[in-house]
Amino acid sequence: MLILSSPSGAGKTTIARKLLESHHNLQMSVSATTRPIRPGEINGRDYHFVDRPTFDTMVHDNAFLEYAEVFGNCYGTPRAHIMEGLDAGCDYLFDIDWQGAQQLYQRAGADVVRVFLLPPGIDVLENRLRSRGTDSEEIISGRMDRARAEISHWDGYDYVVINDDIERCFEKVRTILDAERMRRSRQTGLVDFVRGLTAPDAV
Amino acid sequence: MLILSSPSGAGKTTIARKLLESHHNLQMSVSATTRPIRPGEINGRDYHFVDRPTFDTMVHDNAFLEYAEVFGNCYGTPRAHIMEGLDAGCDYLFDIDWQGAQQLYQRAGADVVRVFLLPPGIDVLENRLRSRGTDSEEIISGRMDRARAEISHWDGYDYVVINDDIERCFEKVRTILDAERMRRSRQTGLVDFVRGLTAPDAV
Repeated sequence: MLILSSPSGAGKTTIARKLLESHHNLQMSVSATTRPIRPGEINGRDYHFVDRPTFDTMVHDNAFLEYAEVFGNCYGTPRAHIMEGLDAGCDYLFDIDWQGAQQLYQRAGADVVRVFLLPPGIDVLENRLRSRGTDSEEIISGRMDRARAEISHWDGYDYVVINDDIERCFEKVRTILDAERMRRSRQTGLVDFVRGLTAPDAV
Repeated sequence: MLILSSPSGAGKTTIARKLLESHHNLQMSVSATTRPIRPGEINGRDYHFVDRPTFDTMVHDNAFLEYAEVFGNCYGTPRAHIMEGLDAGCDYLFDIDWQGAQQLYQRAGADVVRVFLLPPGIDVLENRLRSRGTDSEEIISGRMDRARAEISHWDGYDYVVINDDIERCFEKVRTILDAERMRRSRQTGLVDFVRGLTAPDAV
């Protein structure tokens, strides 16, 4: 389970897309949400759209690896789906904030790798947020405050990568993913392999 | 501190040489030893050659990160030299066995990354050991026993890499080294960088 967090505007979406393209057994975790479906969104691809009673029942049944309420809408990561995929040898990419990362780490522990992307400078972040449209100064200012708040939780992550160049940043996150897959604890089949090596009659 | 362990014949020396060539701020840890200097060896490059009383005093002064006695000769990693290098931003590569790895991990903990190389098959290992010279069956057999004993400690390592191809194996170990350098806890200067990003008057 690879968690990718960053303040809005630090390039997380692009990095996530490139990771999914380059690693075929890496899948995006699809959250459940109570917010209404928007035009162009597909149920099951973008989100699992559920009503509030269904969401509340799932919370009650401990069916989420992490969940949160944001501006009146609920979002959560369904546990069963992820666990089945992991058992089948799939890795999952999570685009969640620091609170989601904290919950997921608490519930899934050693299986989680947390990567935080930082912008190369606060001016770069502000320029990216401004270039998105014709938002008012007030909205920009609010986004910058949220970005700073998110950044302030950088120390809850295993890895920190500064996104000064999207290709270089992608290579770094890819390196982290590839290395973490070589951890002894994540390599299935090693026990049998070593048993074969050390058997007294193996030659 | 990157520990590279493997049974004899699994390609560790080649991988270590390639790592040192490709990473300029990675240095080989030079052990102190009481064994006599051999022709072609250079004091300070291959080993720090010391007499037994000097070695014993260093043990007594807790001056080793790890040490062991093998066939009547003592080997140890001098603590002060490594610590100074680490403070200066240098990484160190350790070519030590599982007991040295265990000691180093106990004394240096989070600063240590342990990588274990495995041969692709026990027959490959035996062929490599045989091709080294005209040793007797008894000597070969003893080496194979020691190799199996070393392999049996594979589960004390963070990463396991199977050396089925020297280039591919090198790329994997390099990936591990590069990823581990991106760990938040190993990146110096991040605290100041984030302080700059989150300062209220930073824009």
